[in-house]
Parts: sequence; structure tokens; C-alpha cells
Amino acid sequence: MQVFENGVVELEHVKLLEATNDEHGGVIVEMEEPMAPQAFATVLTASMLHWKHQGKRGVWIKLPINLVNLVETAVKAGFWYHHAEPNYLMLVYWIPETANTLPANASHRVGVGAIVLNAKRELLVVREKSGKFQAIGLWKIPTGIVDEGEDISKAAMREVKEETGIDTEFLEILAFRQSHKSFFGKSSLFFICMLRPLSFDIQKQEQEIEAAQWLPLDEYAAQPFVQKTQLFKFTTELCLAKINKSYTGFLRHPTTSIFGNRPGYLYFNSRDLNLSNCDD
Amino acid sequence: MQVFENGVVELEHVKLLEATNDEHGGVIVEMEEPMAPQAFATVLTASMLHWKHQGKRGVWIKLPINLVNLVETAVKAGFWYHHAEPNYLMLVYWIPETANTLPANASHRVGVGAIVLNAKRELLVVREKSGKFQAIGLWKIPTGIVDEGEDISKAAMREVKEETGIDTEFLEILAFRQSHKSFFGKSSLFFICMLRPLSFDIQKQEQEIEAAQWLPLDEYAAQPFVQKTQLFKFTTELCLAKINKSYTGFLRHPTTSIFGNRPGYLYFNSRDLNLSNCDD
Repeated sequence: MQVFENGVVELEHVKLLEATNDEHGGVIVEMEEPMAPQAFATVLTASMLHWKHQGKRGVWIKLPINLVNLVETAVKAGFWYHHAEPNYLMLVYWIPETANTLPANASHRVGVGAIVLNAKRELLVVREKSGKFQAIGLWKIPTGIVDEGEDISKAAMREVKEETGIDTEFLEILAFRQSHKSFFGKSSLFFICMLRPLSFDIQKQEQEIEAAQWLPLDEYAAQPFVQKTQLFKFTTELCLAKINKSYTGFLRHPTTSIFGNRPGYLYFNSRDLNLSNCDD
Repeated sequence: MQVFENGVVELEHVKLLEATNDEHGGVIVEMEEPMAPQAFATVLTASMLHWKHQGKRGVWIKLPINLVNLVETAVKAGFWYHHAEPNYLMLVYWIPETANTLPANASHRVGVGAIVLNAKRELLVVREKSGKFQAIGLWKIPTGIVDEGEDISKAAMREVKEETGIDTEFLEILAFRQSHKSFFGKSSLFFICMLRPLSFDIQKQEQEIEAAQWLPLDEYAAQPFVQKTQLFKFTTELCLAKINKSYTGFLRHPTTSIFGNRPGYLYFNSRDLNLSNCDD
């Protein structure tokens, strides 16, 4: 087998795309070097026949955005879109006659809200510079989106730091909400986190935050929009329950994955269940 | 303003793409009708100037897969990929000089595992036909992926029904785990759910399931792989804690969203906190 620089291999005088096997009987092609669409069409046709002959199942082609000129060729060859990120498009094809068992694309966006209470029963709140909450002048808890690859707990601490300058320690997840059709049809998970403040002098972020303050919980709760909105009233109730020490959420514990290759956090009610050999 | 059939509008003798405003100062173009790439390039250039003049921010172009011939033109005009689903590609451009505040793509896949115990302390378990667990002959709880738009609780009931034929009622979420770099770099959330069986005669699914049975909890726990794997031992501990009635997870309560437009479920420890006016 001869390997060329542009990601093409030659096997018994037929040029094929260089591919690696995945764990599910399929192959992955990561295109990197520029190629003319016609040349790509030829080598793709030969490669598909080769993979079919080998009994391969899913075929993945990852095209960086600078190879956008090859997208149409792949679609004309029967590929469809699987997912895209700013700098690449992933296309996929299913060779067998049976229904495909290809894994689905990411389906959920994940958000966090941070409850940060000081010893004076004051809640850390912000007023946003734009959006629906700005219009009604609402004092609300810091919120934000969990980045891909970011722990929920760390995202909550990061958002508080970014919006208010306050350093915090993550305590627990008090509740979460799942909803659908939030953004381009994707589903959404929103985690309400309890954090302990480690600093108290507010330095608000300029770009998105109009104002930030420690607001007495009674004043937060008395806002008309909080009064009439179930999810905001719920925030008040959670704050009161935490002040009374009568509520337990899910604490986090570091874990390894089943096959030991991917660390992560397990969240559960550890007042009710002590997990041996697993302290934070 | 004159509107043509192919999604082009004419404004003061300049042809523009038909667009709707989004809620964040941007515009959305949903291409539907075929167009030649050169014609698209011309009308896109004129449209971009028009939107910039209007002070628009983000520009979204949704291209169905049958209009794949226009992808290259959009990328050459400076657009990049935002996300893709099997039948369309979403491209985006940010007009202002400032850093973009475009919402991120979906970042997480969501999975469920179902703990179903009968009155004899037997756990509903399956053996899979392929994959890593098949190789070691593991009896494991039913698991699966939450579809976009599907409630976690319903996904758990659906997977149990599909894999074993058992009807169930959702009780609560006992714990969840977040991990990263799971699939094409996406993050993952896995929810362990407690369900009550409503039927008991197993009818296993043919395609993916080798065998299914009610297994005494002791025998489940005694499997060597369960013994040595933290996450599986944890499942045993959760089962025992539920049998002893000493553990409380998060129950679900239907909610409306903040602006009342999107229903969903709120999950929290409702032994510790009663949410008024919000019963399932």
C-alpha cells in the first residue's frame, strides 16, 4: 500500500481515501489536504466500493471548513450531515441494508443559575444590559451556558466570577429543569446551583451587566415578576430552605467512567448515601 | 418591496434575500428554493450590505441539504458553520466589530439508565448483543439515549419498554453523572432513574438484546465487573438504599417556563421542599 501526502492511499493500483476504523464496524476519514472535487468524487466512489466489500457499516467524513468545495461531492455520493462545529462539517453514510444505528448528534444545551447567599441573608443578583429581563428591570441570579467540556459546577463558579467578580466554592445542585424547543429545536437542561461566597466586593462585568449587588432575600422575593413566576418563586423557596438547613440537593463526587478512561463528576444525595472511597 | 417566489425580495431595485428578524438584533434566512451559486453570491453580497446598514448583528442562513450547492458560496462570503442536522446546515456570520455573542451549539448528549426493582428484590437486567458489555457477559440495567425533545423520565420508560417489554411508572432521578470527550468531543450527562414496574412478563427486544431477566440483587452485585467498577457498585448501593427507603432523589414536577411558553419538568428533592400549586 502506498500513501500519498493528500490523504489518499493506493491499494492494488486503485487510489482510496485514507481511513481509520471506529469501534462500531465503521470507518472515519479526516480530510486535511485540498483536493479538486472531481478527484475527490473518483477516489470516494472507489473507497465506498472497497469499504462495502470489507463489510464496513458507518462511513464518517470530516471536512474542515477550508475544504468546503468537497461538501457537494460528498452529498451527491449519498452522504448526509451529522453535525457541524464552526471549523468543520461531519458527513455520514450507512452502508448496510439494515436501519442505521449511528449515534445521534448532541441534543441538549446546558445552562446554570447560581444561588450565592451571604451570612446576612442577602442574595447575589445582577441586572442585565439587554434581553427580556432588562426590559422589566429584574434583579436575577447570575446565569449562563455550560461550555462543551466544562463541568456544571465550574460553569456556575465561572459565571458568578465573570458577572460579579465574586469568588465562590461549589456546594451542590439544588434542582434542575428540562425543557424543549429552546434554541433551533434543541432541548435544554438548566441546573440551579448553590455556591458559597469566598469574597464579597462586587466588580461587575461591563459588557453584559448593568448592575450587581447583594440584595436582601425579602427584596428579591418581593419583585412582582418573581412573585408571579413559578420558577423564580421556586428560587426564593430554595434559598429559604437552604437558610433553614432543611433541604438537601445533589453533591458532586469525582468518578472515573466505567472503562476508567474518562473522569467526571457523579451528583447525588450524599446526605442519604455515603459513597465509600470517593471523597471530593 | 416586491417578493419573488425563490425567496428573493426586491427593495428599491436591489434584489435581497428574504429574512426574518430574530430576538437578538439579527436576521434569519431560510433558503428553500433552488438558486444558482452565482446568483446567490450576488444577492447575498447586496443583502449583507443592507443588513450592515440596518445595524443588524448575527446573520443566520439555513440551507436544506438539497441546496448543498450554495454552501461554498456562503463560506466564501465569510460565513461559518453553526450546527447541522441530517437535512440541513446552519451557517452564521457576525456583522458588528465587537466579539460575537452568538449562542453556542448543543453541547451535550443525554443518556438514561433505569433501575426497576420488583417486590422480590429482583432487578430488571439485560445482556446486550454487541459492544463492550457483551464481551464480558455482563447483566446490566437498561440504558439508552434521550432523544431531542424527549423528557428524561419518558426516555427511561421507553428504553425499558423497548429492551424488555416491561411497562413502568417513573418515580425519581437518583443520581446523574457528567463526563466529557464522549463522542466527537461532546460532553455527556447520564441520569440514573428509578422506575416502578407495572408489568412483569419480559419480552426482550430482538435486535440489540441477547437476554433479559429479573435477577436477584445479590447476584447482580456479585458479578466481578460490578464489584470492581465504581459506577456499577454505586447502582447496587442505590438499589439497597431504595429498598431500605433511606434515599431520596429528585422527583419531577411539571412547570412552565419563565415566559410561560415552554412546558417542561422541574426535578428536585420534594421530600425536603413542597412546591405549592405544582403537583404531577
